[in-house]
Amino acid sequence: MSSTYGTVFKISTFGESHGPGIGVIIDGCPAGLAFDTDFIQQELTRRKPGQSRITTQRREADEFEVLSGVFEGQTQGTPIALLIRNTDQRSKDYGHIAQQFRPSHADYTYQVKYGSRDYRGGGRSSARETAARVAAGAVAKLLLRQQGVQIQAYVSQVGTLKLGKAYTEMNLALAEENAVRCPDPETAERMFQYIDDVRKQGDSVGGVVDCVATGVPVGWGEPVFDKLHAELGKAMLSINAVKGFEYGSGFAGVEQLGSTHNDEFYIEAGAGSEPGRVRTKTNQSGGIQGGISNGEDIYFRTAFKPVATIMQDQDSVDVNGDPVTVSGKGRHDPCVVPRAVPIVEAMAALVLADMYLRNKLARV
Amino acid sequence: MSSTYGTVFKISTFGESHGPGIGVIIDGCPAGLAFDTDFIQQELTRRKPGQSRITTQRREADEFEVLSGVFEGQTQGTPIALLIRNTDQRSKDYGHIAQQFRPSHADYTYQVKYGSRDYRGGGRSSARETAARVAAGAVAKLLLRQQGVQIQAYVSQVGTLKLGKAYTEMNLALAEENAVRCPDPETAERMFQYIDDVRKQGDSVGGVVDCVATGVPVGWGEPVFDKLHAELGKAMLSINAVKGFEYGSGFAGVEQLGSTHNDEFYIEAGAGSEPGRVRTKTNQSGGIQGGISNGEDIYFRTAFKPVATIMQDQDSVDVNGDPVTVSGKGRHDPCVVPRAVPIVEAMAALVLADMYLRNKLARV
Amino acid sequence: MSSTYGTVFKISTFGESHGPGIGVIIDGCPAGLAFDTDFIQQELTRRKPGQSRITTQRREADEFEVLSGVFEGQTQGTPIALLIRNTDQRSKDYGHIAQQFRPSHADYTYQVKYGSRDYRGGGRSSARETAARVAAGAVAKLLLRQQGVQIQAYVSQVGTLKLGKAYTEMNLALAEENAVRCPDPETAERMFQYIDDVRKQGDSVGGVVDCVATGVPVGWGEPVFDKLHAELGKAMLSINAVKGFEYGSGFAGVEQLGSTHNDEFYIEAGAGSEPGRVRTKTNQSGGIQGGISNGEDIYFRTAFKPVATIMQDQDSVDVNGDPVTVSGKGRHDPCVVPRAVPIVEAMAALVLADMYLRNKLARV
Amino acid sequence: MSSTYGTVFKISTFGESHGPGIGVIIDGCPAGLAFDTDFIQQELTRRKPGQSRITTQRREADEFEVLSGVFEGQTQGTPIALLIRNTDQRSKDYGHIAQQFRPSHADYTYQVKYGSRDYRGGGRSSARETAARVAAGAVAKLLLRQQGVQIQAYVSQVGTLKLGKAYTEMNLALAEENAVRCPDPETAERMFQYIDDVRKQGDSVGGVVDCVATGVPVGWGEPVFDKLHAELGKAMLSINAVKGFEYGSGFAGVEQLGSTHNDEFYIEAGAGSEPGRVRTKTNQSGGIQGGISNGEDIYFRTAFKPVATIMQDQDSVDVNGDPVTVSGKGRHDPCVVPRAVPIVEAMAALVLADMYLRNKLARV
Repeated sequence: MSSTYGTVFKISTFGESHGPGIGVIIDGCPAGLAFDTDFIQQELTRRKPGQSRITTQRREADEFEVLSGVFEGQTQGTPIALLIRNTDQRSKDYGHIAQQFRPSHADYTYQVKYGSRDYRGGGRSSARETAARVAAGAVAKLLLRQQGVQIQAYVSQVGTLKLGKAYTEMNLALAEENAVRCPDPETAERMFQYIDDVRKQGDSVGGVVDCVATGVPVGWGEPVFDKLHAELGKAMLSINAVKGFEYGSGFAGVEQLGSTHNDEFYIEAGAGSEPGRVRTKTNQSGGIQGGISNGEDIYFRTAFKPVATIMQDQDSVDVNGDPVTVSGKGRHDPCVVPRAVPIVEAMAALVLADMYLRNKLARV
Repeated sequence: MSSTYGTVFKISTFGESHGPGIGVIIDGCPAGLAFDTDFIQQELTRRKPGQSRITTQRREADEFEVLSGVFEGQTQGTPIALLIRNTDQRSKDYGHIAQQFRPSHADYTYQVKYGSRDYRGGGRSSARETAARVAAGAVAKLLLRQQGVQIQAYVSQVGTLKLGKAYTEMNLALAEENAVRCPDPETAERMFQYIDDVRKQGDSVGGVVDCVATGVPVGWGEPVFDKLHAELGKAMLSINAVKGFEYGSGFAGVEQLGSTHNDEFYIEAGAGSEPGRVRTKTNQSGGIQGGISNGEDIYFRTAFKPVATIMQDQDSVDVNGDPVTVSGKGRHDPCVVPRAVPIVEAMAALVLADMYLRNKLARV
Repeated sequence: MSSTYGTVFKISTFGESHGPGIGVIIDGCPAGLAFDTDFIQQELTRRKPGQSRITTQRREADEFEVLSGVFEGQTQGTPIALLIRNTDQRSKDYGHIAQQFRPSHADYTYQVKYGSRDYRGGGRSSARETAARVAAGAVAKLLLRQQGVQIQAYVSQVGTLKLGKAYTEMNLALAEENAVRCPDPETAERMFQYIDDVRKQGDSVGGVVDCVATGVPVGWGEPVFDKLHAELGKAMLSINAVKGFEYGSGFAGVEQLGSTHNDEFYIEAGAGSEPGRVRTKTNQSGGIQGGISNGEDIYFRTAFKPVATIMQDQDSVDVNGDPVTVSGKGRHDPCVVPRAVPIVEAMAALVLADMYLRNKLARV
Repeated sequence: MSSTYGTVFKISTFGESHGPGIGVIIDGCPAGLAFDTDFIQQELTRRKPGQSRITTQRREADEFEVLSGVFEGQTQGTPIALLIRNTDQRSKDYGHIAQQFRPSHADYTYQVKYGSRDYRGGGRSSARETAARVAAGAVAKLLLRQQGVQIQAYVSQVGTLKLGKAYTEMNLALAEENAVRCPDPETAERMFQYIDDVRKQGDSVGGVVDCVATGVPVGWGEPVFDKLHAELGKAMLSINAVKGFEYGSGFAGVEQLGSTHNDEFYIEAGAGSEPGRVRTKTNQSGGIQGGISNGEDIYFRTAFKPVATIMQDQDSVDVNGDPVTVSGKGRHDPCVVPRAVPIVEAMAALVLADMYLRNKLARV
C-alpha cells in the first residue's frame, strides 16, 4: 500500500530496477491540462543516468510511453499511466549479492520483512524508482505552471564543501548549466572535482539539495497533520538516501529568540489601482505559517547521505548469518545530489499540486 | 480531511483552544488491548500546561473521558473516542487579535484560506490540539509496550545551549526528573536558567528534542513513500513550531564518505542455544534501512523554532490591511521543548504502532 | 478503520449503544457554511426512538452538543465533532445475552472476530450508531441545500403490503405526516396496522424505503469504482438490516429490451433567453449514467429485513458452544423502516455532499 | 482518484477502450504468493470478447504482461503491474459519435463533467476496463485459494427467463460448460436462444448474475461502513450496467416475519475429536451477520440492465444541443451477463481478499 502518494493528485509507482520497466499511474489529475510530452521527457532526461563521469554509467534512454489518460493532447480526468522500459539492466552484476547483505542498503530489511527480495540492482529499493516520480512530477509541474508556480532546486553542499550563499543572491537557472547543478559556477567546478576525487577512490560522499518554490499563493497546505511543510518533509524523506529536512530557518532557527525570528507583516503597496498585498519583512517562516503557504517564497533543504555502494571491500553477513566480504560492483553514482535535483523538484511539485487541488475544497 | 493521521492505527483529532474541548477518535486499535487509563492520564499530565514557571500558566487539568471503544477494561476493536474538556479558557485575552494577524502565527493564513477563523487562542492552530495527540499516543504506547518497544525523548538543545552528549552516554530516564526534560542534570539546570532569562525579557527561544525508540524489531516501515523515517518526519513536522527533522547521521552525515558512513553488518552471538542476531557495527542509519527498521535503536532529532508569541510589541497588519502594533498577551511558553517531549514521543508512538500493524500484512 | 466514510466530506462515527454516548467527527466540511443547529436537532428527532407505539420505547432525547468546528454560527473548515449522550440505557436488560448469541444478530461474528464484545444492546453493532450518521447527514443536507439539492425518502413497502405508486404520483412531503412515513395516507394507515399487528404477536417484519434526490446538477459522481450509485449502494447497505439496493429501473429493468429501456435525449426549451437543457424522455437510468448524475431525479430503493430481535423464544448456542433458548427482551422496533427514512436520507446526503465536493476537482 | 479500489489489497486500474492498452497496479498483495500466470490468463480468457456468436465480435487476445512485483515466480510485496495491450481497436467505428450522445451511455455525463471525452469506444467508461479487474481479481483468487475460499458465479436470469433453482440444487461447475454460463444445461440452451433472438433484432436484454463464495471463515468483514455486504454491493454496482444488488434473502426477505427469517444457531458435531462448529439452520443472512462473515456460504445477486448499444436508430442530441439520430454501430454484446460472470467473481475476490487481510488487524 505504500507505493502511493498524494490525497487528490495521487500517484502509484511500480517497477524494479532490473524488471521489464518502471512506471506510474496518476489518478486525480484534472481534465483539460495540456499534456506536454516534450517537457516530461526533458525532466526525465535531467534525472537519467550517464550524464557525466560523476554519475552512474548505466545507459538508460528513459523514454516513456503514455498508456492512458491523454486524448487529443489533453488530460481527460482519467488515470494517466506512464511506462518507462528498462533497457540496460546488467543483472549478472548482482549475482554476488543474491546471498549477501550490502551495508547500509535495504537488502537485509527487505529480506526479513518479505522473506525474499529481488536482489538485482536493489529491486524495488533502487533509486531507479524515482524516474517514475520525475515523470509524474513533470505532470504536476505542468499543472502548477498554470497557477504561476515555479520550482527550482540546486546543490548547495557536497561533503564538507558548502555553497554559502542564500538563494536570493544567485541566478538559480545557472544550476542547469553544469554537471553538479550548483548555481554558482565556481563552486560548481570545485564540487565537480570533489566528487570526481571521491569517485576515483572508489568512495562516495553526501550532499545537500536546496529547493525554492515561487509564486505559491496564500492558502495552500492543510492544518494539523498534513501541513504543507510536513508533506514536503515526508516527500523528501521518501527519496532514497535522504537523512534530513528543514524549511525556512530550520535547525539554525532554534538558536534565535522570538523577537528576531518572527516575520513581521507589512503592506506592500499595489501597482496603480491594485490593492496592497500582505507581505512579511523577513521570511524565516520559509513561506509557510501554521502549515499553510503565506505567499512568500517557500524554501527548504534536504540532506543526502553518501551513496551506500562503494567500490571497496566491506564486512557483512549473508542470508545464512555467515560473515562475508562484500565487494563493490555495479554502476553507481559517487554522489547522488546532482541527479537528486530533479527528483527533489518532482516531489515538491507533487506535494504542491496536491495542495493546490485540496485548497479548492476549503470553502463553500 | 487533514486532521486524520495513520493508515491502520488511524486517529482523528478535533477541537479548538477555547471551544468546549478537544479530543480524538482512534479507529483501528486492535481488540484485546488492556486499556490503562492511569497511564494515559499520566502522559497527558506530562504535557499539560502550568508545570513550572518556564511553561504557560494556563491551568488545565487535562483530564479525559473515554466515550467509546473500551469495555471491561479492554479495547474492543471499535473506535476509541477520548474527550478532554477545556476549563481555563480566557477568551477575552484574545479579543485584541480578532482583527490582527500575529507575526509568525497562523492567523493570516487561516483567514485567507477559510475566510474566517476562531481567533480565540489560535483556535484549531493552537498547540492545545496536541493534547489529543498525546492521549492517542499513550494508547499507541500501550500497544507498543506489548511488543517490547520503548520510546524516550528529551531536550538536547535550548537556544545556543547544546547538550553535547550522545544518547548512549546518558540515563535517559533522568529527563523526567527536571522541568526542562534534559537527562543531564547539570545541563538541565543551565537550560532552565536560559529559558527563565528569556521569559523575563518577554521573549522566547527555540530548542531541539531528541528521541530514541528501542526494541523495534526488524521489518517495521514500508518501502517507497511511507518509509519509516518519512512518516516519522511528517509526524514531527506536523507538530506546532517544528522546522526540521533528521534521523541517524542526519545533516552531519552529509559530510562523510561512504566508507566511513556505512554500517557494516556482523553476527552477534546468541545466548546459549539462541541463534546469532544480525547487527550493525555502527548505527549511522538510525535503525532504519530502505525505510524499514533493522533492529537497531531508532533515533532522530526535531528542531523547534522560538514560540511566536512574545511579550513585546511587534509590527503587523490587520484584516483590513492597515498597519497595527501587536502586543503580546495571553499565557504562553517561552520555550516549547520541555512540553514538546511527550508530544514527540506520542507522535513517534503513533507512527510505530501504525507500522507494527501494517507489517502484519507483509507476507501471506 | 471501518467507522469512517467519505473521501472529502469524511465522517468518523464512534460510540456504543450503552456506553457514555455516540458521536461523529466530520473532517472535510468546507468553511463558511451556516450551521443550523435547530435543523440538525430536528433531523435527530425524526430518527429518535419512542415516536409512536410502533417504534421502540427506549427514551432518548438525542440532544447533541457541538464540541468543535463551529464559530460564530459558521463552519470553520476544521473538524466538526458532535456528541450525543446516551441517557436511557438499561444494560441489565442485556445481562442474559452476555453469554448467548442472538439469531441473525452480530453477537456471534463480533465475538469470533474480536475475541470479546460489548453485549449491552449490541454495543457498536446497534442501530443506535445511526444517530451519529443522521447528525452528520444533517450537516451534509445543509451543504446540499445551498446547491439546490433536496432529498426525500419514504416507506414504500411493509411486509407484503406495497405502496404501488411511483414517486412522481405523490406529494412526498406527506410522508412526514404519519408514523409510518408513507406519503400515501391511506396506505400509511394500513401499514401502521400491519406493523402494530406484528408487534402484538411479538414478531417483526421487513420493509422497503424509497429515496429521491432532486436538483442534483450534471456531473456528480466519479467513474469506475466510485460511481455515484455504487457509493449510494454501499452507503445504504451499511445501514443495519439492509439486504438489497437498486436504483433506476433496478431488478425489474433486467426484463426489458434495450430499445425500450434506453433513455433517449431531447432538448427542453429554456425559458426566455435561457439556453435549452439536455433532458431524457424517460428516466430508467435513475438520474445516473456511467456513474455520474445526468441532471434527472436520482431515485433508488433499499430493502430492510425483519428486525432480528423478536419477543419469542428461539434456539441458539452460547459462547461455550452449548444449546440455549434465547428469549426476546429489551425495547425494539417491530419494523425498522419508519425510523430508517431519515437514516436513508442522511446516508444519501453524505454521499452526495462528498460527490459535490469531489466534482470541484474534475477540471483544471 | 476513483480508479482505485480496496483498503489493503488495493488496485488501481487505467486505460481506455481504444488507447494503447489497459492495466492495473495491485499495491498491497502480500509477499510469498505463488504467481500462477496460467491461471490469470485463463481468467482473462473467460472474460475476453469473441467467445461465441452471442458476444461482441471484437477480437482481443487479452494477453497480459507482468511489469513488476513478481520475482522467481513469487509476489514480492511490491506493486504488481499488469498490462494488456489493445490490439483490435476500430476507432473509425466511433467517428460518428464524437459529437453525439448515445442514449443511456456515459457520453453526456463525461462531456459535462470533464469538458471533453475520449469518444472512441466509450474511452474510460467502456466495459473493456473490466479486463484489468479480472486480472487483479485472479491474483486475489490465488490468495483466497490458500485460505480455502472458492468463488463461483453464474447466470440465473436473462430477460424474463429465470433459472428458478437455488444454488444448492445445482452443480455450479457446469456453468462453465456453455456459452451463457448457466449451470442448468437446459435453461442455458433456452437462454442462448433468447439472447440470439434479441441479437438478431438488433436489440439487447438484461440479466442477473448470482454468486456464491464458499469456505470463507468467520470474521471477515468490518463493522459499520465497510460491512462485507456493503463492500460487495459497491464492488458489484461499480461494474458497468449494474442496476441492483441483494444478498441473502434480499428484496424477498422484506416480506417475511422475523420469526421465520432469523437464522437460528446450532452446533454441528465435529468429526472425531474435533470440536463442534457453530452453524445456522437456515442461511437467509447470506453468510454475513453485522457485516461480518459467519462461516456459512456467502451468496448474492447482481442485476444487469440491457446493454445500451443497440443496432437500431434512436433519438438523441449532439454536443451543440441539436437533435440527432444515433445509429447503432460498433461490436457489442446483446446481453452482458455471460461475460459478466468472471467480472462478478473478480470483484468478489477483490473484496474478500481485502477483508481477509484487514481481518489480520482485528486483534492484538
